[in-house]
Amino acid sequence: MTTVEPVADTRTRLLATALRLFAEHGVEGTSLQMIADELGVTKAAVYYHFKTKAEITEAVAEPGIRELDELVVEAAKHRRHGARVDHLLDGFVDLVVRHRVLVALFSSDPGIDAALAKSRHGVEGFKQALITIVAGPEPDVTGRVAAIVAFTGIAMAGGSPDLAEVDDETLRQELIGVGRRLLGRPRRRVC
Amino acid sequence: MTTVEPVADTRTRLLATALRLFAEHGVEGTSLQMIADELGVTKAAVYYHFKTKAEITEAVAEPGIRELDELVVEAAKHRRHGARVDHLLDGFVDLVVRHRVLVALFSSDPGIDAALAKSRHGVEGFKQALITIVAGPEPDVTGRVAAIVAFTGIAMAGGSPDLAEVDDETLRQELIGVGRRLLGRPRRRVC
Repeated sequence: MTTVEPVADTRTRLLATALRLFAEHGVEGTSLQMIADELGVTKAAVYYHFKTKAEITEAVAEPGIRELDELVVEAAKHRRHGARVDHLLDGFVDLVVRHRVLVALFSSDPGIDAALAKSRHGVEGFKQALITIVAGPEPDVTGRVAAIVAFTGIAMAGGSPDLAEVDDETLRQELIGVGRRLLGRPRRRVC
Repeated sequence: MTTVEPVADTRTRLLATALRLFAEHGVEGTSLQMIADELGVTKAAVYYHFKTKAEITEAVAEPGIRELDELVVEAAKHRRHGARVDHLLDGFVDLVVRHRVLVALFSSDPGIDAALAKSRHGVEGFKQALITIVAGPEPDVTGRVAAIVAFTGIAMAGGSPDLAEVDDETLRQELIGVGRRLLGRPRRRVC
């Protein structure tokens, strides 16, 4: 497999391969050499794109982090509190479920923090933006605890191997139901 | 500081020192040499007790894991479902809050999984025992999702740096309130 390819393609294939190997062997259990072997390229070819595994984990997480960033910005634009919370919760659950393989991986990997730190809001700013949307600009302890339990719990459940056999749509509905209960939103009528 | 000490004392001091350094520098940022320096002993003295940092993280987590194990066993003894859930939730929140420094550390460290794996139930068995208590022996998806969001969310919030300034008693009450809402338990009358 030594056909000449555009650089961008190799990078994309490399990240897809890395994610697959991470999911199979864990981030710890995956080496740059394994990624090179799986791709059918030399380790030098991998080094051309990424110097360390940490750089790869950041790059794998980056699209999800960017979506999260955009979601917070979009949700904050609504004028009504309820509409802001609904937008954020629906978007967050959708993102977690679409990226559930990634979420499962990164819930126990420091790479996600490095990726978050580079995002527009940074880890702290991002968390604050999220809490502000659901609990207001000067949230009391009750509001902050509910927000943190809701979003960390949804992310952890979304990536949980114990729910791996639940299909995406069911998982999405269940997580939204739990989130609405936690964030004090009324139950939705099922159409 | 080269007075002769009983072995058990050095081990206890070593674990207390390790936890303090882990909290300050992170598990990754703490070396066996740093632990030895802080204790005023040689690295060889640390090696006498623990061969690797992973062994230390396991030993630091061990008392909390044992409490968790005992809690699940005790909670399961109640005849009424409500009493089982109340016992488990109260005990879990109490444990998380008492060990919040440890919980903060281990929520992002693989050492906790190694420690859990050695506990009576093992990681999987332990999660299953927890879910069975709150959602019954053949739990539906709704019950499983609520249980996973509740317990992972409570653990994450308990260890969250964003709530570090909240005092133990307030945090305990807030986490129990959120947990009861999630697990379908009626609100308690404040005495």
